Amino acid sequence: MTHDSQLTALLLVGESYSDQTLFYKTRFLAGDPFIYIERDGRRTLVVSSMERGRAEKESSVPEVRSFDDFGYRDLLRELKDRGRAFTAVLGRIVRESGAERLAVKGSFPALYADYLRAEGFSIDIDPQLLVRQRRAKGPEEIEAIEEAQRATERAAGRAVEMLAASEERGGVLYLDGEQLTSEALRSEIEVTLLRDGVDSAHSPIVAAGPGAADPHWSGDGPIRAGQAVVLDIFPRSKRTRYCADMTRTVVKGDPGPELRSMHQAVLEAQEAALARVRAGASGRSVHEAVQAVFARRGFSGGGPGPRYLHGTGHGVGLDLHEAPHVGDVDEELVENDVVTIEPGLYAPAVGAVRIEDLVVVTRDGYRNLTRFPKGFEL
Amino acid sequence: MTHDSQLTALLLVGESYSDQTLFYKTRFLAGDPFIYIERDGRRTLVVSSMERGRAEKESSVPEVRSFDDFGYRDLLRELKDRGRAFTAVLGRIVRESGAERLAVKGSFPALYADYLRAEGFSIDIDPQLLVRQRRAKGPEEIEAIEEAQRATERAAGRAVEMLAASEERGGVLYLDGEQLTSEALRSEIEVTLLRDGVDSAHSPIVAAGPGAADPHWSGDGPIRAGQAVVLDIFPRSKRTRYCADMTRTVVKGDPGPELRSMHQAVLEAQEAALARVRAGASGRSVHEAVQAVFARRGFSGGGPGPRYLHGTGHGVGLDLHEAPHVGDVDEELVENDVVTIEPGLYAPAVGAVRIEDLVVVTRDGYRNLTRFPKGFEL
Repeated sequence: MTHDSQLTALLLVGESYSDQTLFYKTRFLAGDPFIYIERDGRRTLVVSSMERGRAEKESSVPEVRSFDDFGYRDLLRELKDRGRAFTAVLGRIVRESGAERLAVKGSFPALYADYLRAEGFSIDIDPQLLVRQRRAKGPEEIEAIEEAQRATERAAGRAVEMLAASEERGGVLYLDGEQLTSEALRSEIEVTLLRDGVDSAHSPIVAAGPGAADPHWSGDGPIRAGQAVVLDIFPRSKRTRYCADMTRTVVKGDPGPELRSMHQAVLEAQEAALARVRAGASGRSVHEAVQAVFARRGFSGGGPGPRYLHGTGHGVGLDLHEAPHVGDVDEELVENDVVTIEPGLYAPAVGAVRIEDLVVVTRDGYRNLTRFPKGFEL
Repeated sequence: MTHDSQLTALLLVGESYSDQTLFYKTRFLAGDPFIYIERDGRRTLVVSSMERGRAEKESSVPEVRSFDDFGYRDLLRELKDRGRAFTAVLGRIVRESGAERLAVKGSFPALYADYLRAEGFSIDIDPQLLVRQRRAKGPEEIEAIEEAQRATERAAGRAVEMLAASEERGGVLYLDGEQLTSEALRSEIEVTLLRDGVDSAHSPIVAAGPGAADPHWSGDGPIRAGQAVVLDIFPRSKRTRYCADMTRTVVKGDPGPELRSMHQAVLEAQEAALARVRAGASGRSVHEAVQAVFARRGFSGGGPGPRYLHGTGHGVGLDLHEAPHVGDVDEELVENDVVTIEPGLYAPAVGAVRIEDLVVVTRDGYRNLTRFPKGFEL
């Protein structure tokens, strides 16, 4: 908590499949809205009566209560509207906590803020609320991320095996008599992840050829020999809810000189970036190391040639994209940040090369959680 | 839009993996925040420069612009904070639209509302914004839901086949020499869904025996002969983003008289509920039909015996749970609502029975999108 006054409560409201801060504080996974309030050391979770038993078993919060404890049923009868009854229950929970001020996240709904202000409470909206706490990962969190990372690498391994085993016919790759497509590789990656208990709700990128110059294109269609295939896999463990993230770029057949020099440059840029990673370093300096390598190799944009289109990395934890941002804004890395380092080059005529590792920031450097090889030509 | 004044703009801000209303209006899927504004017939999508190309190709919005068109880069240099730069860009987008009032959803962040109010705009927070529009599904939406429903049934079919093929040894079920567990059935369901391009980020419920009396327990461990197994599958199509939802309860071995009579009652309750479904009917009357059957059969709660713990259904579309609620609040069904009808009975000593179909509400009844049989004993 950033507010230590005894009259301030931390208030989180939402559902914890998408609100990872709510999951972080409660370790309770539910698809319907619930409420967490913390004041002066007292931590309370309030859920629907149907969820109460599960919340008592599964959550990390000592005190679990139900909406009905705050008169939800009567409010529903009176107001005839589930949303209004829920808001009124929220008001009662806050009043009972004894708080006068509420510390809430940047995403806290204006609907509730307006209601609570009208009820006499002050609302401190803090976009950084719990962001810093979530950054420095504990040993169990790092272990969860590594477990997801291992599954990611097993899945990437399957895709690379399939590409390596494929054969060229008329410029197109074939495997077991069928054209090898992005869809087939993606399906194999997803099934491999799932068998490891890892979720691919955000489908992996399997992007081959010129289309991959759009960094978020997920890729489709047959893969041609000599095309760079960007494999970017970023799943979430169903059990722990922690994410992993890795990108490799590979090619079956002759990539030609331009793709080859792009791959060399990206490898070198990643090494330069990693060399600057340590607690206390600025994310901007890491990003500038990448830009310097690309500039030196003549890939600094301007013409139609390969360019660098995005930041160098981001934090990974319960959210796939979380603080810090490693890019053109000064953000100091802290010990046990888990961040990606993912330079890439994008050329509309030929495609893309991106290489992404996941590392834990340490006092004097980093520990790389990624073990997958970075070879380009299969 | 519920506000037709020319000076009011509809404003949506968020990321469209979790904000389905944003996806509904833009058909653009992105994991990082973006902005949609609509005023006086002009519809504009504003995304990061990296997403612009993809947004132009994939979204349904005629006008696509980038944050940089509104000075994001300069703001970032000036403010040195991505969140504040984004908020300032939002203010500029709203100002350029010419709107004076903004219609926003219930979940609209207080952070943005406060900023925009300070800039002189009025904010109309409407929890019902676009909710009604999203309810009545068009033909393509119903087709997408049916496609997800077919995949759901193929996956349920695999689980039922495995249970049917299992053999009892010492009270426990075995398949291919191994104990048959909830985990094994869940994995088979998930892989089957995934091969159909359907996502199971929300893992299916495979809950056997007494633990299933907690309706949201997802289930684990070996399954015993005679235990009711609740299979509740609610995936989302990766391609269309539309959801499906189905529950069946099956048993291998002798369930005994109590579970058998629970299953009969739930079947009868579902038929009674379905008989009341039609455009213009109240969701409450559908729910009351279920309660009446359970009361008549002596399952109205009170003692430790089987009870009904939840509403009778909910809308399904881009969100798994969306309007209308079919339960103890008056909500009138409209033509082309797609809703679940899912009565259940829960008895801590023996377990649970729930049966759930997905139906389209029609003028004089409903069309059942569910084809899966409702047999109990395998």
